[in-house]
Amino acid sequence: MGTEFLKIKEADEAKKIIKNLFDELYPQKSINIPIEDSHDQVIFKDIAALMDLPPFNRSLMDGYAVKAEDTFGATDEAPKILKCIDSIEAGSFSEKTIENGECIEISTGAPIPNGSDAIAMVEFTDRENENEEYDKIYILKSVAPNQDVALQGSDIKKDMLLLKEKTIISPDKIGVLAGQGIKEVEVFKKPKIGVISTGNELVMENESIEYGKIYDVNSYSIKNAAISNGAEAVSKGIVKDNYHELKTNIENSLKDSDIIVCSGGTSAGVGDVLRNVLEDIGEVILHGISVKPGKPTIIGKVGKKVVIGLPGNPVSALIIFYVFIIPNIRKIAGKPGESNSKVNVTLSKRIHSPKGRMHYSLVHVKENLAYPIIKDSGAITSLAHADGYIKIPKNIELLDEGEKVTVTLFK
Amino acid sequence: MGTEFLKIKEADEAKKIIKNLFDELYPQKSINIPIEDSHDQVIFKDIAALMDLPPFNRSLMDGYAVKAEDTFGATDEAPKILKCIDSIEAGSFSEKTIENGECIEISTGAPIPNGSDAIAMVEFTDRENENEEYDKIYILKSVAPNQDVALQGSDIKKDMLLLKEKTIISPDKIGVLAGQGIKEVEVFKKPKIGVISTGNELVMENESIEYGKIYDVNSYSIKNAAISNGAEAVSKGIVKDNYHELKTNIENSLKDSDIIVCSGGTSAGVGDVLRNVLEDIGEVILHGISVKPGKPTIIGKVGKKVVIGLPGNPVSALIIFYVFIIPNIRKIAGKPGESNSKVNVTLSKRIHSPKGRMHYSLVHVKENLAYPIIKDSGAITSLAHADGYIKIPKNIELLDEGEKVTVTLFK
Repeated sequence: MGTEFLKIKEADEAKKIIKNLFDELYPQKSINIPIEDSHDQVIFKDIAALMDLPPFNRSLMDGYAVKAEDTFGATDEAPKILKCIDSIEAGSFSEKTIENGECIEISTGAPIPNGSDAIAMVEFTDRENENEEYDKIYILKSVAPNQDVALQGSDIKKDMLLLKEKTIISPDKIGVLAGQGIKEVEVFKKPKIGVISTGNELVMENESIEYGKIYDVNSYSIKNAAISNGAEAVSKGIVKDNYHELKTNIENSLKDSDIIVCSGGTSAGVGDVLRNVLEDIGEVILHGISVKPGKPTIIGKVGKKVVIGLPGNPVSALIIFYVFIIPNIRKIAGKPGESNSKVNVTLSKRIHSPKGRMHYSLVHVKENLAYPIIKDSGAITSLAHADGYIKIPKNIELLDEGEKVTVTLFK
Repeated sequence: MGTEFLKIKEADEAKKIIKNLFDELYPQKSINIPIEDSHDQVIFKDIAALMDLPPFNRSLMDGYAVKAEDTFGATDEAPKILKCIDSIEAGSFSEKTIENGECIEISTGAPIPNGSDAIAMVEFTDRENENEEYDKIYILKSVAPNQDVALQGSDIKKDMLLLKEKTIISPDKIGVLAGQGIKEVEVFKKPKIGVISTGNELVMENESIEYGKIYDVNSYSIKNAAISNGAEAVSKGIVKDNYHELKTNIENSLKDSDIIVCSGGTSAGVGDVLRNVLEDIGEVILHGISVKPGKPTIIGKVGKKVVIGLPGNPVSALIIFYVFIIPNIRKIAGKPGESNSKVNVTLSKRIHSPKGRMHYSLVHVKENLAYPIIKDSGAITSLAHADGYIKIPKNIELLDEGEKVTVTLFK
């Protein structure tokens, strides 16, 4: 491959290289999970109905299951009289069969008994018991065959397509699955991401801080961005800017991660440490993207897994992760589109952009306006104010106030 | 209150009554949670910065911490020579103070030592050791005061507003909190919702099904809709259409729930069972909304808690829950807007609507078109195909093909 291959890449070219690498290494896989845990996950392949719905001919009213022909011509003045031979509550059933001249009392939702083909609503009947063996039911109105009966399979037929592949499982879809008695659903398997922060000066939020140290940001922002875009992600801790520590952590993390995302500390030498590790235990696929911010990004491969090196600056790390990595995570997880959410808004004031490099610029969004956040030195302030970023192509030096822009939201 | 008060309410009036009831009974509360668990939750009140960032004057480059004045006039030809008296890695510090003629080797990210006010980049220096006590550093270029120094607090000043109340905690915001060493964040407290399904014929998805039974849908769809809109929700199981069972379950569920959501089985009498329970242990606030679907909805109050009775039909139950209840759950949880997601699209074909009732109609959304789902008898098929619903006001009988509609998505 040599140095030629590792020249800084244009942003679009880098995107393509990274996409091809992910496509090659991470075929989409599936896993069966309980429907209880399936919210917001994505159906892997078409799901067929397991059963008819209703599963039986079902009464739509409280009343009497009858033979429709026995009711023909019934009126208030000339009722038809039927013998009531049983009663069916919703949830139970009758083993009896209706013969002509008979009926069975039935509740809404109960299965229609054998021999019956219609329901006479209770409102159009009278009931009488004069110490006879059976109650007499006066049918006051003629009913048609199938009247107030939901026929078996009229809602859903067994084996019909119930939910299509790639459907995102929303609350209503969980209900649809439950209604079929489905316990587990086959969804796209989430990639497992290990997140490593590199920097001698970094400590985690649950440690006390000494002079010279700062709290790590990237472990948290990168991990949560991965999770909310379809991954399982865990922090693999902080390592020093040290070849052996980084190598050991990456090797250990690869045991239970599909993808490793490192972010550099602040030292200019960090990229080199990761590069050296990658060259020794795998290979460097890409080092340097012509993009602002985030130029020193590294993409490597160890065995059949991708190891990513993001810049240490929290803004740069997050933007590079959203632009170049998240679309690929989403694809593995079956999620549609390159991000969770984009909005089309108007730029509130002009932004200058460096010529010759793709530029991603943080913005705050409020009431259909995007407000550029321009504070070079203030990484954390910028993140605190930002809602997302806009993309400014490399040949554009100026986006003017009033221009339409698409903001990818940090979600 | 009497019967007058319990006349069927117009949809808009019902919405107002329910909103007022929730506002009265459920003031927004807060809870402190670990930042690790805070994704997508909502900040309860303004959060101030706990510390300056950077927390110390920090080197932006690898090089030498110097007194700028010692470098004035330095060039390749006429370098200034300084004694190197110490070395500082990122994450550590030096207790030494620089005097004129001295410098300290420093890594990017390390704290600037006392006496120093600028960094000479390593690229513009040479180093020499001729067995003397100290290395000699040749400064080849003049540096200005504060050059390549990130001053303490230049990114964030202690006590400044870090994150505003009502901010939704996205991945970047978790990073911002972590960068301040913040372990716990005060967020809006989620309401606890107990979900009860009523119906003699209902079984849960993990039971075997007998003739005459059907699997429950509403426990799953309602519970998950509540969760994805900011609530904690648990299923309280299935109860029979029976006064005592329902009363006992509601009373038990109220012990650990803020809100109870029942949905009826299919029996026409179900509404009456819940109504009787509510009248005995609390009061009925509203019974019947002039809306399609979902007319038999009940809103009651037991002690200081709301008990809701949704229709049994899964489509009706879910629509009523989204339209009338979810906006109030979101308010308690601090979530903006009445739903997670709406889209403005074009109607693919005309829809007829009953005059005199507010109508909510299921639609499938694809490529900026809303396709009406019109299948009265097929509740589950409808849910399987639907992405959300549109609202058709009571005085409108026809929405024509090509009209713009707003779809509230089931999310």
